[in-house]
Amino acid sequence: MNILFIGSGAVGSYFAGKLSQTGAAVSLQARSDYEHVKIHGVHIHSVDGDFHYQPRHVVRDAAELPAKPDYAVLCIKVVEGADRVALLKNAVGPDTAIVLLSNGIEIEPEIAQAYPDHEIISALAFIGVTRTAPGHVHHQAYGHLSLGSYPSGLSDKARWLSEAFQSAGVLCNADADIATARWQKCVWNAAFNPVSVLTGLDTGRILNGQEGLIRALMQEVVAIAAAVGHPLPDTLVDKSIHGTKKMAAYKTSMLVDLEAGQPLETEVILGNAVRAGHKAGVPIPHLETVYALLKLKEAQRDRCSEVMSVSNQNAGNRLHTPFRPGA
Amino acid sequence: MNILFIGSGAVGSYFAGKLSQTGAAVSLQARSDYEHVKIHGVHIHSVDGDFHYQPRHVVRDAAELPAKPDYAVLCIKVVEGADRVALLKNAVGPDTAIVLLSNGIEIEPEIAQAYPDHEIISALAFIGVTRTAPGHVHHQAYGHLSLGSYPSGLSDKARWLSEAFQSAGVLCNADADIATARWQKCVWNAAFNPVSVLTGLDTGRILNGQEGLIRALMQEVVAIAAAVGHPLPDTLVDKSIHGTKKMAAYKTSMLVDLEAGQPLETEVILGNAVRAGHKAGVPIPHLETVYALLKLKEAQRDRCSEVMSVSNQNAGNRLHTPFRPGA
Repeated sequence: MNILFIGSGAVGSYFAGKLSQTGAAVSLQARSDYEHVKIHGVHIHSVDGDFHYQPRHVVRDAAELPAKPDYAVLCIKVVEGADRVALLKNAVGPDTAIVLLSNGIEIEPEIAQAYPDHEIISALAFIGVTRTAPGHVHHQAYGHLSLGSYPSGLSDKARWLSEAFQSAGVLCNADADIATARWQKCVWNAAFNPVSVLTGLDTGRILNGQEGLIRALMQEVVAIAAAVGHPLPDTLVDKSIHGTKKMAAYKTSMLVDLEAGQPLETEVILGNAVRAGHKAGVPIPHLETVYALLKLKEAQRDRCSEVMSVSNQNAGNRLHTPFRPGA
Repeated sequence: MNILFIGSGAVGSYFAGKLSQTGAAVSLQARSDYEHVKIHGVHIHSVDGDFHYQPRHVVRDAAELPAKPDYAVLCIKVVEGADRVALLKNAVGPDTAIVLLSNGIEIEPEIAQAYPDHEIISALAFIGVTRTAPGHVHHQAYGHLSLGSYPSGLSDKARWLSEAFQSAGVLCNADADIATARWQKCVWNAAFNPVSVLTGLDTGRILNGQEGLIRALMQEVVAIAAAVGHPLPDTLVDKSIHGTKKMAAYKTSMLVDLEAGQPLETEVILGNAVRAGHKAGVPIPHLETVYALLKLKEAQRDRCSEVMSVSNQNAGNRLHTPFRPGA
């Protein structure tokens, strides 16, 4: 099996590396890291032991590959300006399964529409991992996966991929209901990420001060998930809170992105949940409030960037007005 | 009539100056500005024309006054650490009316409890005014007052004071229902102030992006006000939004305070409204959310201050947990 990872960020580089170690034919499509990775490969500094690997092929564009891969694993953040459909264009042949390894909910429909004849596998990573330099990744914590066929079930290719990760030492859960797994992860993400961005605080300080707000946000996500056919366990909110309290205080990925000047996963983590809630008629005033504030916060940051960048004077207004007066 | 203004901030200095110009016997209790004002008086740079005045007496403590004043006008922000009861202690004689000229709702009960035998006049300022240096105040916009007896009505002393301001050229509305006037001002304040602090944006950018959030917050304050016996006009939210759109984009006082490292009027503008809403059983999820976020934002700022101040290592945790899970 030939596997192409598209995206040389921390998540893609790490999981590609784990599969590489089993001798699988793993290639990497890189952009800014292309030169470095082509020559030096990728170094993973990991809590589980450092390792290095050289991908079978390192390409700037999948058109350079000698053959279409069996799996095209798209490992990029789903943010404004990330053209996922275009990135997959030269990567998929008739028999290529598309694997979407990204945060968020409802990230699949856009790809399913653009590639209606391709099998789609949806995957979630639970990992603390950071790209520290070109071709260098620091793996700090966790490192497991959930994956399943989209919209549900487990195809042969999904099972094979899950087993390949397992044999590479990656705890990989083959989940026939991956959409529900996405909602479950969203319960944590949609609560902690926006609150951390709006306040600048880590999970410990947030829970110490306003656990009630986090619970209210989580409960609304649980209510949306149930309304759209993905009921979650009653105990999930309590377990998420207690689990987070047991962890070391943690700076969310969205706050890290904000501080690094990176685009935020606001729409796939929060916007898609809010839209699903509106469509299903679920009252979600707490989520609406943090979503509206987060859009303003993004606008404020964009404005600061505009002031700093004279070449960016025609930047469009990125504000959305998703709020429903009186909702 | 002898009138003592306690607090040499922008609001107190300005209105004391206006009364001074009519020849009224106006004294000023100053703290950090004492030396400067005692020698040089106060300079007001005003859109309506600059002026200068020398208060009758300038004191550090009201105990230094030759006689107790007829009015003790307390002009300080009601924030954590501001001991209003102590500030009034030496200022009030048996016949002194206490005038509370501060932002917020329900700012009177604490004073009424401490001084049960004194007349209390409650006053609101609508003014754009900034202290630029000791004894120097810049008056940029507006400049009118509403005042009335607490809890309601218009005493002779309230009428006299209102007329004194009128004769000083200050538009002063003698309002027999000042509590309702406070709720009306709170509709604007409780919406725009927290959103500006959480996003760093002025009124123009906020309304351009998320008018719906502002409307939802305003509507909740209107609902609380009605539930606690202060019904406001149905048209108030629309009028507030349209009025703000017509104004030049405006940086709220709370955002100015945040950026200047000053304590925020979170509790009297937002916390008191939230508590009144809870007590009255009014659903206020949007207000609860911004209140919880604002408390976290304050905690984050305090934490930054603590890091900077080694002498402050025993600072208590100022976090409150006002959130009602499931509310």
